[in-house]
Amino acid sequence: MTMRIDVISAVPDSLTSPLNTSILKRAQDRKKVEIYVHNLRDYAYDKHKQIDDKPFGGGPGMLLKPEPFFECIEKLLDQRKYDHIIFPTPGGRFYDQKLANKFSLANNIMIIAGHYKGIDDRVRQKFATDEISIGNYVLTGGEIAALVIIDSVVRLIPGVLNDSESALNDSLMDGDIIEAPYYTRPAVYRGMEVPEVLRSGNEKKLRRGKKSSRKF
Amino acid sequence: MTMRIDVISAVPDSLTSPLNTSILKRAQDRKKVEIYVHNLRDYAYDKHKQIDDKPFGGGPGMLLKPEPFFECIEKLLDQRKYDHIIFPTPGGRFYDQKLANKFSLANNIMIIAGHYKGIDDRVRQKFATDEISIGNYVLTGGEIAALVIIDSVVRLIPGVLNDSESALNDSLMDGDIIEAPYYTRPAVYRGMEVPEVLRSGNEKKLRRGKKSSRKF
Repeated sequence: MTMRIDVISAVPDSLTSPLNTSILKRAQDRKKVEIYVHNLRDYAYDKHKQIDDKPFGGGPGMLLKPEPFFECIEKLLDQRKYDHIIFPTPGGRFYDQKLANKFSLANNIMIIAGHYKGIDDRVRQKFATDEISIGNYVLTGGEIAALVIIDSVVRLIPGVLNDSESALNDSLMDGDIIEAPYYTRPAVYRGMEVPEVLRSGNEKKLRRGKKSSRKF
Repeated sequence: MTMRIDVISAVPDSLTSPLNTSILKRAQDRKKVEIYVHNLRDYAYDKHKQIDDKPFGGGPGMLLKPEPFFECIEKLLDQRKYDHIIFPTPGGRFYDQKLANKFSLANNIMIIAGHYKGIDDRVRQKFATDEISIGNYVLTGGEIAALVIIDSVVRLIPGVLNDSESALNDSLMDGDIIEAPYYTRPAVYRGMEVPEVLRSGNEKKLRRGKKSSRKF
């Protein structure tokens, strides 16, 4: 089973490098996931290929028009069923590791990325199954939110990380426990020492320490 | 005044496209910000240019070694003062719009991005001034967290967004108020209508509606 993720974006090029580096590249090379980024402009059928327009009620900024989203989303929905159609929005449910776990069980996920001032609300009303906020801050577009969701989900797919323990041992995976600090060689560097308990390799003491501090 | 942002990363290429698209590209073109991504590997001075090693105390996964970070960070600190040295970590303070506002006033910001299992903890101990979590989920690396911080901060720099009202009117900017839904033409699409109050352009009613629903 290969997961499929479709992202619809007005600035699809912004996603090129992160989706083709490191773990996300490897996951695609290993056929664990297929990721498609659709250029909203390809679904604008008027002669100027216009994707944005002024908001009703006035105010500054441009809004993404409904038609190109409808055209693209309906084409995708004609081809397959989606378990989640995710709409990143500051008003959505806070994204967390539990939700990442849930999404990682899906076959097909669609992510609708807004940009500029936002998207005509009818797109959300008609299609969104999951309105998600990745945090209490404002971003230029939904593309970075899409990256957060894709990265956090794909690494949970079995066979993506090399050592299956790596994801299971993560900070946050097990409720709110943050892992203890990690150290590698040299044991002493610039006068800063690796704690004795780690250097002696006392597993029992180590586990006890796991509920304390932080890792990356 | 041009803000300067330095990011240190083991996978610097992942950041290329998002940093060179849309608002972040425009902000750099307008000389509002300079963004430098440093390849951690360029600061590994052993013959194999090794940047990772096994963690003390055992366990799966590799850890980023302290020396390349120390070499890179100390070189940067020799050149200028940094207002914030940001260390993205699940154990950090939750990032929010207030913090984005604070960071947007800085002259120089450094972001230390971990990857794989994490970074030798001495890097955090020695240099981090701001330990930041962008949310309760696990990512493959700090690069996406760096993107969240950079995007949210740079758009607040005066002159980056075309209409200064745009950032000031954002959702979340004013406490927890989420903006009302936005609509653009056509007024009726696929049987879905733009609310009458917006089409009539009644400003007073409109403002009252602003504490309700959501936008992108």
